[in-house]
Amino acid sequence: MACSINDAQNDFPILNQQVNDERLAYLDNAATTQRPRQVLAALQHFYEHDNANVHRGVHTLAERATKDYEDARVKVQHFINAASADEIIFTKGCTDSLNMIAATYGEANVSAGDEIVISIMEHHSNLIPWQQLARRKHATLKYIGLNDQGQLDMEDARQKITDKTKIVAVTHASNVLGTVTPLKELAKLAHQHGAVIVGDGAQAVPHMPVDVQDLGVDFYAFSGHKMMSPMGIGVLYGKADRLRAMPLYQYGGEMISEVHRDHSTWADIPFKFEAGTQNVAGAVGLGAAVDYLQALGMANVQAKEQELVDYVLPRLTALPYVTVYGPQDPRQHTGVIAFNMANLHPHDVATALDMDGVAVRAGHHCAQPLMEKLGVTATARASFYFYNTWRDADQLIKAIKETKEFFDGGTF
Amino acid sequence: MACSINDAQNDFPILNQQVNDERLAYLDNAATTQRPRQVLAALQHFYEHDNANVHRGVHTLAERATKDYEDARVKVQHFINAASADEIIFTKGCTDSLNMIAATYGEANVSAGDEIVISIMEHHSNLIPWQQLARRKHATLKYIGLNDQGQLDMEDARQKITDKTKIVAVTHASNVLGTVTPLKELAKLAHQHGAVIVGDGAQAVPHMPVDVQDLGVDFYAFSGHKMMSPMGIGVLYGKADRLRAMPLYQYGGEMISEVHRDHSTWADIPFKFEAGTQNVAGAVGLGAAVDYLQALGMANVQAKEQELVDYVLPRLTALPYVTVYGPQDPRQHTGVIAFNMANLHPHDVATALDMDGVAVRAGHHCAQPLMEKLGVTATARASFYFYNTWRDADQLIKAIKETKEFFDGGTF
Repeated sequence: MACSINDAQNDFPILNQQVNDERLAYLDNAATTQRPRQVLAALQHFYEHDNANVHRGVHTLAERATKDYEDARVKVQHFINAASADEIIFTKGCTDSLNMIAATYGEANVSAGDEIVISIMEHHSNLIPWQQLARRKHATLKYIGLNDQGQLDMEDARQKITDKTKIVAVTHASNVLGTVTPLKELAKLAHQHGAVIVGDGAQAVPHMPVDVQDLGVDFYAFSGHKMMSPMGIGVLYGKADRLRAMPLYQYGGEMISEVHRDHSTWADIPFKFEAGTQNVAGAVGLGAAVDYLQALGMANVQAKEQELVDYVLPRLTALPYVTVYGPQDPRQHTGVIAFNMANLHPHDVATALDMDGVAVRAGHHCAQPLMEKLGVTATARASFYFYNTWRDADQLIKAIKETKEFFDGGTF
Repeated sequence: MACSINDAQNDFPILNQQVNDERLAYLDNAATTQRPRQVLAALQHFYEHDNANVHRGVHTLAERATKDYEDARVKVQHFINAASADEIIFTKGCTDSLNMIAATYGEANVSAGDEIVISIMEHHSNLIPWQQLARRKHATLKYIGLNDQGQLDMEDARQKITDKTKIVAVTHASNVLGTVTPLKELAKLAHQHGAVIVGDGAQAVPHMPVDVQDLGVDFYAFSGHKMMSPMGIGVLYGKADRLRAMPLYQYGGEMISEVHRDHSTWADIPFKFEAGTQNVAGAVGLGAAVDYLQALGMANVQAKEQELVDYVLPRLTALPYVTVYGPQDPRQHTGVIAFNMANLHPHDVATALDMDGVAVRAGHHCAQPLMEKLGVTATARASFYFYNTWRDADQLIKAIKETKEFFDGGTF
């Protein structure tokens, strides 16, 4: 492992390459992160030594694979401070986790006239499942608004969350605005009104210390691939009593107690929500990613990202032709920075930056209602992770300046 | 790549190990297969060079990753001879695929009084989703029986499939009995009665040439991990017009056209069924597994497994204390061989075989109604893949004989 967080980039083989004859500056971490050699080694080791299907086998490989899988569950439990490993359900990813909650808890607990409250900055994954649930159930979907800094408006939340509210589902950190929401306060508010709260932790868990018990959330979802684990693995955390009371989602192997011709009975949590062969290697890789992050320390990860934002955000906002969305104060801002350049389409910006080796995303970032609210159809977005460097930041600023010059007709 | 199919074992690093001080003979391939170095290298290459989120990005890595992902879809298309790549939906696995069909096509097309027809040899993944759908809809679930060789009884199928039938869902190859079903004939029968047919190809696609157009199936599901790909990836094939007409399953990024506060519109197939970040690396690995299998030739894969069965099955059935379930004729039998040893619990058998380095499974194999039909609660199961060798087969037979001697009080 790298000696210090500032050398972490050396652990990531993919970052040591050139694109378009320029050094790669990978600033698309909100879409997906890269994998350190430690995670790739864990994956390779599993497939070369222990690979088997879990739980059902008594042979040596099956026992090893089962232990690897359940050890990963315990690592995730401790990482987010769940009360029990049974409260950690492995899923395909954050989208799968959120759909699962809407289709099980939501389906069972939302009726005509009830209200579901989300925020206007939600990613589609934490928006459409609730929108469609509300439509099916003739319930009302309400959106909590934002203040002029792009932060969740708690005053509005207090208006929107009422005794009619059955579910509050809010992101913990925006994938566009770079803001963190007061999830703990929202959880209290939801519970005062007898509602449950679902946290979308996709952009939070990889970047800051998260304690689900302290937050007081009923459910909390996140993806592995946004925290350096293999793709195809995610987590749904749920309080044990909530999970036990919930109807099922998928049916198949592993989640049953007994199957008869005309009826079946089910296993206890977490297995009742893990039908079929799970992504065991993905879980093992996620466990290795958790190990890596815990060795760094999540407070250090957060501090490093803050330093990068402290450095880059003022340099961006100082450019008169750049509009940054969300808070202008770096101290209120995560490593996700959405911006536009005057008179340029964000796709052209992203393409131009790519010519300088800088990978940023352009589009609606799966948050069209937020785009509408911001009065744009799309933005560019640079998103940092702890392994990014000041050199990456400088390369971004330089490439933006060069893009401006290029489109102004100057030389590239 | 190995020079011949008989040397293929050399491509699998995991097989070159000892367990319990004995050479590993991995005979649990019906549960999950092992990965050749070519698949592991493809996975590693993706994560070390091209990894990014797909479709949404314009930067170089995102374009490369998107190409890798869509290339894998085309490889799968050709592998099962789908008419179009749009008919290939990437899922989490076969269980996910089957649940998706039941929750979308099934939910929309099955009503009170309708009938769903499956077989008594179905894996729980192709049984419970239909059982629970039937219960929700007040529909009837019917089971096609077996003949005394454990083969699907077509006479019974003709009785059970009627004009009341809306869905026929049958495995293409049993994960217990080692039989192949007449899926093409069943498809014709289903269509004559206006029903759709769903094939569970989990135990077929890895082991024999499969042509979904020739079979005439409407839907067909299989898992990557049972054909050497990484875990956490599977396929749902569906005829394009069926898929287009179907309601959605999960909601999130990638599957939308437009999202507004109170309603949304959807993307075309295949994307409308691929919500959220997909397992891109898993798809790339599946593509590499397809390449590997196609280089061998699926007819050769099937022939090699047949040779192994020709060798091992008569040696097993010759043992008076061994009961083999399913056809006794090797020519009617796939590489999946379920058996019991007189007076021994299958778990004890599997544990004893493991002491001799032989990995077999013991249990109900996620097919409890079939176990009930066979009059047992569990069996042991040895399952072969093309990379197994005659040495593996001999080791199995020897270990079974030694287990018999051991439990008879002889020396081990």
